[in-house]
Amino acid sequence: MGTGRLEAFSDGVLAIIITIMVLELAVPHGEELAALRPLLPVFLSYVLSFLYIGIYWNNHHHLLKACGRASGRVLWANLHLLFWLSLFPFATGWMGENHFAPVPSALYGTVLLMAAIAYWLLQQAILATEGPDALLRRALGSDWKGKLSPLSYLVAIAASFWHHWIAQAIYVAVALLWLVPDRRIETALLQRDA
Amino acid sequence: MGTGRLEAFSDGVLAIIITIMVLELAVPHGEELAALRPLLPVFLSYVLSFLYIGIYWNNHHHLLKACGRASGRVLWANLHLLFWLSLFPFATGWMGENHFAPVPSALYGTVLLMAAIAYWLLQQAILATEGPDALLRRALGSDWKGKLSPLSYLVAIAASFWHHWIAQAIYVAVALLWLVPDRRIETALLQRDA
Amino acid sequence: MGTGRLEAFSDGVLAIIITIMVLELAVPHGEELAALRPLLPVFLSYVLSFLYIGIYWNNHHHLLKACGRASGRVLWANLHLLFWLSLFPFATGWMGENHFAPVPSALYGTVLLMAAIAYWLLQQAILATEGPDALLRRALGSDWKGKLSPLSYLVAIAASFWHHWIAQAIYVAVALLWLVPDRRIETALLQRDA
Amino acid sequence: MGTGRLEAFSDGVLAIIITIMVLELAVPHGEELAALRPLLPVFLSYVLSFLYIGIYWNNHHHLLKACGRASGRVLWANLHLLFWLSLFPFATGWMGENHFAPVPSALYGTVLLMAAIAYWLLQQAILATEGPDALLRRALGSDWKGKLSPLSYLVAIAASFWHHWIAQAIYVAVALLWLVPDRRIETALLQRDA
Repeated sequence: MGTGRLEAFSDGVLAIIITIMVLELAVPHGEELAALRPLLPVFLSYVLSFLYIGIYWNNHHHLLKACGRASGRVLWANLHLLFWLSLFPFATGWMGENHFAPVPSALYGTVLLMAAIAYWLLQQAILATEGPDALLRRALGSDWKGKLSPLSYLVAIAASFWHHWIAQAIYVAVALLWLVPDRRIETALLQRDA
Repeated sequence: MGTGRLEAFSDGVLAIIITIMVLELAVPHGEELAALRPLLPVFLSYVLSFLYIGIYWNNHHHLLKACGRASGRVLWANLHLLFWLSLFPFATGWMGENHFAPVPSALYGTVLLMAAIAYWLLQQAILATEGPDALLRRALGSDWKGKLSPLSYLVAIAASFWHHWIAQAIYVAVALLWLVPDRRIETALLQRDA
Repeated sequence: MGTGRLEAFSDGVLAIIITIMVLELAVPHGEELAALRPLLPVFLSYVLSFLYIGIYWNNHHHLLKACGRASGRVLWANLHLLFWLSLFPFATGWMGENHFAPVPSALYGTVLLMAAIAYWLLQQAILATEGPDALLRRALGSDWKGKLSPLSYLVAIAASFWHHWIAQAIYVAVALLWLVPDRRIETALLQRDA
Repeated sequence: MGTGRLEAFSDGVLAIIITIMVLELAVPHGEELAALRPLLPVFLSYVLSFLYIGIYWNNHHHLLKACGRASGRVLWANLHLLFWLSLFPFATGWMGENHFAPVPSALYGTVLLMAAIAYWLLQQAILATEGPDALLRRALGSDWKGKLSPLSYLVAIAASFWHHWIAQAIYVAVALLWLVPDRRIETALLQRDA
């Protein structure tokens, strides 16, 4: 079983998630610039979530390149990841419409945390399929970003109830951390093919 | 005629169904945790339907691997299956918003039943295309899961009007039954290639 | 330029159109069976439109099999077809919510008519690309279904203002006419490969 | 890394954007033709945006044909383009519902301008990946359309506040300019293969 259809289905779901989030930006009734002002927090949380879905798509794209065979465990680990990502539009809308209030900010962090855990489980499922000498295992190395991110989300969830802007700052910082392209798998693939 | 575009279209429809269901989770107005409580039944029915669509995607993925040629009958049997699956968001939303009341629970079971029958018809259409010695026929064996599921849905529909939680328990039990990966087709494909 | 991405984009748009139409089936507030009754006309018009989009997908699938090269004209003729198909959810919803009233029924027929013309233009664009001896030209033959359908829609549009149920009967009859699989292109492809 | 999945994901997002825009055409309550009249500006802005997304899909399709390798920079430049395109439904709906009022018209032009800049950045990212002798560089030539369009949008944004119909005329004119198929890349690919 190749991974072609797994990629196609994941691409479809991610493309819809990223586009459905923009529906939370409801068209305002006024025709003045002032009518857009109440939408600013919704817009900002949309930008943040667009970044996160983009990062997940990017990393997923690289991860599956290193996966030769879609086993049943890989298929379900992938669906589990898509489940948590599918909650992004809800969590984004709730956080944006409540101007980054504590509880919605903490829920947003919880969805980020669960998605990070689901991504890690998918990685483990692929590693189990590929065997102990997997290209992916060497490519991942210490995987410090994958370990730091969930810890950061935990801190951010706690911080939401203290100064909620700290939580936002952490969410932005982790996103920027991942924006730096992850060349590990790409490099390992090039080395193998050389 | 290969099955490539049939798979692509089905992936698209399934990806949209699974993502549109989350729109039933309307963003609440309050910013407290209590604002989420009324959403709990909607969320639980979303999880159940996500599982079912995931199971259908998984099984569909395996079924089409065993289908060499997309005949007209296969194309229409597939569209018929997608029709019943497209009613999942409606049935899920109605059941969730009415806290698993009898009639919505029975309707949900009816949609599950019709989808199961449509899947069986698609299987028959592929068997007819592939001929009497089809790999798929041997792979399916007694197909006890495919026979037990519609019977269970019938029981659940009846039970909805008696104790509706029995219906929910049956829906969850059948989903868990299918979660156990179906290795029949995969095994048969491996044996053929060996 | 191959037609792969043209097919993928069309599949995406058609998959979304078919799934978005179901959103017109708004989840009712009551939990009794009676709450579903007002939705019946919306549901029936959804079934009709699902059939039509399925027919277009099926025929489009066969048409592009006979198209070797995606020229600029083919790309735009295809987008023009998708434009009219994208108006199906609107026309379906308006007709259903107004219980097949004259003007909405006539608008539905107009969208069907424009889509049929757009499909014919796409066929012409592909014929122009493929040259005078095109496989497609021979496969199409007299193309009586393609000529009868727009005429039937014209009659149905006029009949909407007289007895609107005649219009519905024509829409259903034309759909059933196309449900009979169109083997012309399939047969011609098999003959060429033989 | 090939560009297959980049194309698939972009196709998905563009297909959803083009289809979601039609949701702004809310089904009216009346059943008379007069009920459609208030929707006319929304419909006209939908047609304009459909054209623009069609143009972007067409050009994107040609651009990626000239891109051999999806580097990290190309992936992010592509996501950046999709971000601005994802704001089309919002900008289209706001402009249409306010009958092309000055501020919504200027916002629409701003989204067009940002998308044009993002497209140019994607082109630069691909040129950087392909090296100084890239087929794409020769194919683009002076790229006068790519330079004229953002300037026109700037003029249109300014004109929105003076006579807003001038802005609309410019948006339509630029769209028509691009409708003339861009044969540069196609020609260059044919020359290379000859």
